[in-house]
Amino acid sequence: MVEPPVNRVDQRIARTPMKGGLTKSRIEALCDGVFAIAMTLMAFSIKVPSIPRDADNARLAAVLFELWPQFVTYIISFVMLGVYWIGHHNQFHYIRHSDRVLLWINVVFLMFVTLIPFSTEVLGQNRGQPVAVVFYGVNLTILGFILQAQWWYATTNHRLTDPDLDLVFVRLFKNRIQLGLFFLLISIAISLVSTRLSLLVFAAIAIFYILPGHVDRYWTPKK
Amino acid sequence: MVEPPVNRVDQRIARTPMKGGLTKSRIEALCDGVFAIAMTLMAFSIKVPSIPRDADNARLAAVLFELWPQFVTYIISFVMLGVYWIGHHNQFHYIRHSDRVLLWINVVFLMFVTLIPFSTEVLGQNRGQPVAVVFYGVNLTILGFILQAQWWYATTNHRLTDPDLDLVFVRLFKNRIQLGLFFLLISIAISLVSTRLSLLVFAAIAIFYILPGHVDRYWTPKK
Amino acid sequence: MVEPPVNRVDQRIARTPMKGGLTKSRIEALCDGVFAIAMTLMAFSIKVPSIPRDADNARLAAVLFELWPQFVTYIISFVMLGVYWIGHHNQFHYIRHSDRVLLWINVVFLMFVTLIPFSTEVLGQNRGQPVAVVFYGVNLTILGFILQAQWWYATTNHRLTDPDLDLVFVRLFKNRIQLGLFFLLISIAISLVSTRLSLLVFAAIAIFYILPGHVDRYWTPKK
Amino acid sequence: MVEPPVNRVDQRIARTPMKGGLTKSRIEALCDGVFAIAMTLMAFSIKVPSIPRDADNARLAAVLFELWPQFVTYIISFVMLGVYWIGHHNQFHYIRHSDRVLLWINVVFLMFVTLIPFSTEVLGQNRGQPVAVVFYGVNLTILGFILQAQWWYATTNHRLTDPDLDLVFVRLFKNRIQLGLFFLLISIAISLVSTRLSLLVFAAIAIFYILPGHVDRYWTPKK
Repeated sequence: MVEPPVNRVDQRIARTPMKGGLTKSRIEALCDGVFAIAMTLMAFSIKVPSIPRDADNARLAAVLFELWPQFVTYIISFVMLGVYWIGHHNQFHYIRHSDRVLLWINVVFLMFVTLIPFSTEVLGQNRGQPVAVVFYGVNLTILGFILQAQWWYATTNHRLTDPDLDLVFVRLFKNRIQLGLFFLLISIAISLVSTRLSLLVFAAIAIFYILPGHVDRYWTPKK
Repeated sequence: MVEPPVNRVDQRIARTPMKGGLTKSRIEALCDGVFAIAMTLMAFSIKVPSIPRDADNARLAAVLFELWPQFVTYIISFVMLGVYWIGHHNQFHYIRHSDRVLLWINVVFLMFVTLIPFSTEVLGQNRGQPVAVVFYGVNLTILGFILQAQWWYATTNHRLTDPDLDLVFVRLFKNRIQLGLFFLLISIAISLVSTRLSLLVFAAIAIFYILPGHVDRYWTPKK
Repeated sequence: MVEPPVNRVDQRIARTPMKGGLTKSRIEALCDGVFAIAMTLMAFSIKVPSIPRDADNARLAAVLFELWPQFVTYIISFVMLGVYWIGHHNQFHYIRHSDRVLLWINVVFLMFVTLIPFSTEVLGQNRGQPVAVVFYGVNLTILGFILQAQWWYATTNHRLTDPDLDLVFVRLFKNRIQLGLFFLLISIAISLVSTRLSLLVFAAIAIFYILPGHVDRYWTPKK
Repeated sequence: MVEPPVNRVDQRIARTPMKGGLTKSRIEALCDGVFAIAMTLMAFSIKVPSIPRDADNARLAAVLFELWPQFVTYIISFVMLGVYWIGHHNQFHYIRHSDRVLLWINVVFLMFVTLIPFSTEVLGQNRGQPVAVVFYGVNLTILGFILQAQWWYATTNHRLTDPDLDLVFVRLFKNRIQLGLFFLLISIAISLVSTRLSLLVFAAIAIFYILPGHVDRYWTPKK
């Protein structure tokens, strides 16, 4: 295992045909796959109720209705995964190619995405416990920080983006993520006082991200 | 977190290189992933029968045969997922780019797709109960309404489609979805009288969508 | 829901910009997703052995070794899924666009792909029973017949392929599928005599498809 | 089933439009799908703790904290899957088209990828047992050998790569894989002495692959 002399490598690199760095399409594919599975499997953690054959019809309705808290945590988590997926999608719209650091940012990002169904179930089964809310909130917050880091890494000196990507847009996007992180941290703090209020703030954050912001004006197609 | 002044943003947007809005390819990837997982996992909910080693060979055949109602609900659901996947596929054939609204229409659409295996199992384990049929039918109906809404949103004023997409085709496609929705609602109503008849109507709807309609004439390749 | 008059539709279709029929990329994406999940989940049906903390080290080795029949059925099924995935991949290499029939051929094909993990587990847990082998073999055979039907449908009059696709290649490919089907049917018949011999024939069929044939000469890149 | 005469086939092949061999995009899609599912499902094997409703809040924290060994094996396996996914991604960056051998190398590669969650759970539940560490290490080692074989197969005489792919780069890449394999084998040997030290070496290998090497200089975009 003799390493070739580095100066020879340097000369070679100058002649290598690959100019644009690694492509980004496979990161997107892996990411879409992980999100798709995490989203689908969360629905599978809702236990299917079964009632005796001769039971009253109203009984099944009651049993299904009793599942509502599981549906609420399911919907919040699904929407939050949607928020992060859309955030990731938007960032990669501007990212042109990838490198080692970006690959690993994404592997770590996906590691915390795959933990969301776990955090959701911890929350769903221990709703009144502040520890469960903190665990869930920290998972969401880490995801937000990683997206923030990815945006910072990719856009600094237009490292992985088009050289003419508008810096105002870069800032608008950064602010949008930061605002969500700010309220996620508030929601985690609130959980020590009231876990219900905490969940309401999570829902509000989800709605905040569903609503359009300044960044959207960049995405409107021009006729 | 000072927001940049909006009028400055306006000026910048005029110069931004991005003209076509967000791309649609990742919505398709996420969607294909969710459908693939929902379809595959439904098959996993059929319990594998195991018989004692010294049992009669005919016994295993009998045990497998007794699973037929599970296979019937599995097949109906799989075909209905196929119907909705093809509907989504067809719509995105004409959709050229995406925006925030389209992204969220799709996240909500996928949320109800991931519930289909749950609804199917509720139906499979409580076949005689009208409540189970209503639950299943409502899930299918919501999916139809979302597809309808997406088509309406994307085609109105050719918002996200080619500017020369034929309006007659837009209408034909809309009618095709509406007809299915109409019979889904009828099937739900029938379940209060007979759950068996209801399931037959579900099967008939699936067959209706498998058969070609006026819209297909637009998809025939011209030689 | 008034249908527009068909003759008006006819006129419009003549002017519609879409000439190539539906694209094929999403069928491929759904198919790759279903295969990926079926392949991965099969490995999850192998139960993880756990031994007491203070147990002898040799005990775990023995417990893992005892799982070998599960690994054998797992490997055979994985390879057979690989065979069908490669067959599908090869066919779509020549298929240029899709239509309604092709979409539904694929939905039905995927329905039987998702049943492979089920059939595999039925076989794995009842290895000595002819019924289990027949069930498994019929599942594989149906997949082969659907691939055969798809090739026939796509290539007849070059319906969905390039107009200059070589007819000799079409025939070579058809023969290759037919040969496998022939031996699958033989293997099913043999199971009534000996289930072990049956499994050997399955393994032989897998090896037959791994080895190159006449068709491969078409895929060799020319320098 | 009469095979057409081969000499006629030879003539035809000379005229066939397909020059570049099979495409590689679907191998990438299947691979990304399998990795996405294996990564996501590993997180699902961590059991969600549930405590009585009236239990102390500190109790949940304690129960979650006790899961740390499961999280450690989860993180190591996730990162190792990330390492192999990135390795596969990098190789396919240079691979231009596929053939039968490459397809089967990948099917076998994916077979051992799908076993990683199984090996991880075997390791997680029997951490002190050398047999579990060996089992896990052998699984990782086989994956490394297959990647090595794939690189050797694809690059020999530039079989599946660009004709001007730099041979120094080919060697650098090969060395990088070999170094990891070397330490994987050492780690397996160490497990007979101390399973803890073994796990530390696994972690060190993961970190080694996260850090950039000579190969990275080829991937840096040139401005």
